[in-house]
Amino acid sequence: METPKLQIALDNYDLPSALAPVQKAAAHIDVIECGTILCLAEGMHAVRIMRSLFPEKTILADVRIVEAGSLISKMAFDAGANWVSVVSGATMMTVESVQKEAQKRNGQVQIELIDGWTWEQAKCWRALGVPQVITHRSRDAEAKGALTWSEKDFDEIRKLNDLGFSVTVTGGVVPQDIPLFKGVPVYVFIAGRGIYAASDPAAAAKQFKDVITETFKS
Amino acid sequence: METPKLQIALDNYDLPSALAPVQKAAAHIDVIECGTILCLAEGMHAVRIMRSLFPEKTILADVRIVEAGSLISKMAFDAGANWVSVVSGATMMTVESVQKEAQKRNGQVQIELIDGWTWEQAKCWRALGVPQVITHRSRDAEAKGALTWSEKDFDEIRKLNDLGFSVTVTGGVVPQDIPLFKGVPVYVFIAGRGIYAASDPAAAAKQFKDVITETFKS
Repeated sequence: METPKLQIALDNYDLPSALAPVQKAAAHIDVIECGTILCLAEGMHAVRIMRSLFPEKTILADVRIVEAGSLISKMAFDAGANWVSVVSGATMMTVESVQKEAQKRNGQVQIELIDGWTWEQAKCWRALGVPQVITHRSRDAEAKGALTWSEKDFDEIRKLNDLGFSVTVTGGVVPQDIPLFKGVPVYVFIAGRGIYAASDPAAAAKQFKDVITETFKS
Repeated sequence: METPKLQIALDNYDLPSALAPVQKAAAHIDVIECGTILCLAEGMHAVRIMRSLFPEKTILADVRIVEAGSLISKMAFDAGANWVSVVSGATMMTVESVQKEAQKRNGQVQIELIDGWTWEQAKCWRALGVPQVITHRSRDAEAKGALTWSEKDFDEIRKLNDLGFSVTVTGGVVPQDIPLFKGVPVYVFIAGRGIYAASDPAAAAKQFKDVITETFKS
């Protein structure tokens, strides 16, 4: 099994507060996510600046496309994103338009699995060639009291992986959670505030990276 | 029946191209929508600048919230928005968090009805106090060949209005469509490219406004 990547989700309200921690933690990070909040706060300038500062990193523009798929994805790829996100509630026509744009640009589409998605949809996304999904606990659900990762979550990840998806896991993941995922085919773990709000973002990122490496060593 | 409002949807890729038409058309416009594309391109600066230029207008930040409801709506209200949008796929917890923020700020929440929404959900949104919904044809569906407005659409608008919602209508509305809505309880008509891409945005907006006034005069 390939070692999962570490993604930093930058859900800051402005670029200055996003840039400082990512600069410190970058050595341990594989994927930089310009979060929905940061994209809405600063626009595609956020993606453009990350691309200029970190030319070697994978950048996800978490624009959460609902419709106007080709326009929004074009804008994100133009700004330097490698990956763009589409919510599971988008129509297949929208998913298809983003997937087409991504293929032209050598980019990738991620479907964010929101409550109510179906396996029927998942099969259609794969048929369209979508390579990635994100499974997560919503921020609002987390805020109401943390659920923990369960065998049900792991089974879902396995099943998505069996369909051919690379699966990203997010939603309040802390380093202590990672060993629970041993043997589960995770493509990317996302950490947000756990890194960018840490007093030492480099040490926090290294801790994530080390536990991922340890957990998934063959 | 109250005369429906006219909303200009600014789905431009940057502020300069959005500002010129809205400045020209402003006299005929009730609601300025900073579209999803504009918000993602320029961030909340787009809302902030519209608020500074048009202090007397209603401003919708079409941020299409999926989750992180209170954070994103707070950001939009801080920037000067009166209304914020939430997609129908968001959980009730997310809708509730945005509605709470809106009530604190004297703002309003709009639910964007995306394929797959249910009347069950609609009743829950009303129970939470959400005052507005948007019913639309998706840009991607439009691109595949324009559907026209039908009795089915009008019945849906009436039924939403009966539930207590103020209903916004969008999706390639042209002035010739407006008379079709005679007697249908529309709260807001949205025009986008029909105004901002017109050679004379003021004349285009006036044409919309005039036909709305004519159609809905008692």
